[in-house]
Amino acid sequence: MQILPPALTDLIEAFGLLPGVGPRTAERYAYYLARHTSDAPHKLADALEHLQGGIGYCRKTFALVRAGQELSDLYTDPRRDKTTVAVVAEPFDLVALEKTGQFHGTYHVLGGLVSPIDGIGPEQLHIDELVARIDEDKVEEIILATNASVEGESTALYIQQQIGDRDVKISRLARGLSVGVDLEYADQITLGRALEGRQTL
Amino acid sequence: MQILPPALTDLIEAFGLLPGVGPRTAERYAYYLARHTSDAPHKLADALEHLQGGIGYCRKTFALVRAGQELSDLYTDPRRDKTTVAVVAEPFDLVALEKTGQFHGTYHVLGGLVSPIDGIGPEQLHIDELVARIDEDKVEEIILATNASVEGESTALYIQQQIGDRDVKISRLARGLSVGVDLEYADQITLGRALEGRQTL
Repeated sequence: MQILPPALTDLIEAFGLLPGVGPRTAERYAYYLARHTSDAPHKLADALEHLQGGIGYCRKTFALVRAGQELSDLYTDPRRDKTTVAVVAEPFDLVALEKTGQFHGTYHVLGGLVSPIDGIGPEQLHIDELVARIDEDKVEEIILATNASVEGESTALYIQQQIGDRDVKISRLARGLSVGVDLEYADQITLGRALEGRQTL
Repeated sequence: MQILPPALTDLIEAFGLLPGVGPRTAERYAYYLARHTSDAPHKLADALEHLQGGIGYCRKTFALVRAGQELSDLYTDPRRDKTTVAVVAEPFDLVALEKTGQFHGTYHVLGGLVSPIDGIGPEQLHIDELVARIDEDKVEEIILATNASVEGESTALYIQQQIGDRDVKISRLARGLSVGVDLEYADQITLGRALEGRQTL
């Protein structure tokens, strides 16, 4: 017995692949698109098809860039101060920092955090490239803007060790961030305060 | 200054077209798909592209069917009792009734509810076809399973008038349903009770 056509049940199943989307929410999305004749399904399908072919990584900062672009605008812009580098775990963490409007340096995306449980060692992160930037860009300050989690802390510690006695100030975002809150979802005011009150390690 | 590649901002925008999806949720979905290399984006894109071409309507009950199928399985199945017809507003309302496992009749989808504010008059709904089914299918009972809203009530009243003095029992779902709750989202137990306690009008 078929209650709904496969075109609809397939769509419900596909929406269920998104994070935090249970069967009810997936049904709601699918029903909405089936009920309203609009170009929303095609717009979404197009955007999805172009996702993986449309993004690349800055070869210096490892931020997300459009495919084929070598360097991030956030790096090449002459108004950005290359001597201050904010180190973040994921490409999306820098969006949160950008939204504060208080940071005018450049970024460095690690591509994750050290996490033995998930089998992620420091050699899989862009830490060597960060250390190389200290000389290349005459970096004066490195802001370790990783989450206030165990992984965030141990990654920050590891980076500090790798930088060693190089002549560079190392700071950490102020603990305005409550422990357990992901940088990506922090509100702009809290994050702005955390930037202002960053402490030299 | 471009913080994120267009492939990603386009996707965030497209997710924002879904009901109840704000910028934060849209970002979360897009980031998730960008972060994890999987076939989830293609699966979802495929399902979306096949949606509109993949669905049709039963020419008797106006339930959703796969494209090209004339009659709904819920109508043609010999185990379904054609003499009892549950009348629902939208194709998805019958899914909720099916899930109770307590209804073994057939359905009739109106395609909406009478709503002067939205410019929907009774002539735009499949009411004539419902009245025709009384003779065609020797219908003994019509269960008016529209929402307990103003539109649901007035549509039910209108249908009752159209049926007039034809020899058919007309019932309404019991008011186990709290007013303002959409049939589509009602839980199965409440809906099951509402079916059991339906009252003859």
